[in-house]
Amino acid sequence: MKIAKPINSLIESFQRLPGIGPKTAERLTFYLLRVPQSQLDDFAQSLSNLKKNTILCSVCKNVSEADPCLVCSDIKRDKKTIMVIEEPLDILVFEKTAKFFGVYHVLHGVINPLENIGPDELYMEDLFKRAHDANEIIIATNPTMEGEATSMYITKKLHEQNPNNGHHLKITRLGMGIPTGADLGYADPITLTSAIEGRREI
Amino acid sequence: MKIAKPINSLIESFQRLPGIGPKTAERLTFYLLRVPQSQLDDFAQSLSNLKKNTILCSVCKNVSEADPCLVCSDIKRDKKTIMVIEEPLDILVFEKTAKFFGVYHVLHGVINPLENIGPDELYMEDLFKRAHDANEIIIATNPTMEGEATSMYITKKLHEQNPNNGHHLKITRLGMGIPTGADLGYADPITLTSAIEGRREI
Repeated sequence: MKIAKPINSLIESFQRLPGIGPKTAERLTFYLLRVPQSQLDDFAQSLSNLKKNTILCSVCKNVSEADPCLVCSDIKRDKKTIMVIEEPLDILVFEKTAKFFGVYHVLHGVINPLENIGPDELYMEDLFKRAHDANEIIIATNPTMEGEATSMYITKKLHEQNPNNGHHLKITRLGMGIPTGADLGYADPITLTSAIEGRREI
Repeated sequence: MKIAKPINSLIESFQRLPGIGPKTAERLTFYLLRVPQSQLDDFAQSLSNLKKNTILCSVCKNVSEADPCLVCSDIKRDKKTIMVIEEPLDILVFEKTAKFFGVYHVLHGVINPLENIGPDELYMEDLFKRAHDANEIIIATNPTMEGEATSMYITKKLHEQNPNNGHHLKITRLGMGIPTGADLGYADPITLTSAIEGRREI
């Protein structure tokens, strides 16, 4: 293939990203040939600093610049309401709603026996430690098979840890149902069942 | 927004790329948090070297490491058949067919009066100079309004330059018609007209 090495090398870097195929990788690379060098340098700097300048928050395991992270160090957040999530990206998603005022706990994955990921591979123990001082644990893992299994495992462990001995810990799961803007005709039976079970008086 | 600066900065860099929206930019960034630092450094290096280590080939204006470029310096290529293309990316597209053995000429754009791009803003003069020694000029600009206008301009100029005075220059345009795998029901009338006009005996 008669293609200059610097171009090929960037095409290959783009192709290693998820969801970016050869055509998109080529298109992005040739687009970048036309931007100023300063934009390329900014991009390069952001990439190489991404992990160098971030650490995991010692409290919630969020990816952060400082320890504790911006959420954990915010005095306005309710430290006794902990939302358990799979990935750091999920924090972004919930923060955008601006409707959650508790704190997070990032598991960094879900229990997945097929990929040899058990509770010990996740930040599970830290969660159980934090749960001692919590009022509510909201389990917000994804509604996938692995997410549900992880949710059940956490629930069981927390019940064992708090056998109604004075301290009452509320354990909740995110509400399931029809998403906004969805078409009922395309909803699957499990989602519809959840929607019926989770119906609210209006 | 409670988001670490190094993360935000990379999300913004991704978002400046064409066809990458906020969601994809976030997904890519959080994916990259899980790759080894060496992959990030390779990516960063490719980005900052993209333009530093490339130049325009003085013959065909292709983006290249060396001058002349890999195509122009290949002794097996027919230097008297020149394909005129809009962008360097188009070379990649034609090279993949492995059916073209001539050389290229990259205009780096098309004539577009709305954006104030005339022939002087493109590598047009260089093309006309090269045409003196050529046997065939294949015009392979895109079949858009601007691409067609550019094709017509080039044709007119080449005819003026070569008024059948001994040296006969063949000027051709890429064949138009139905693309492979297309559904006739969805073909537009202009494409169908081209397909009828360009029909071949079998």
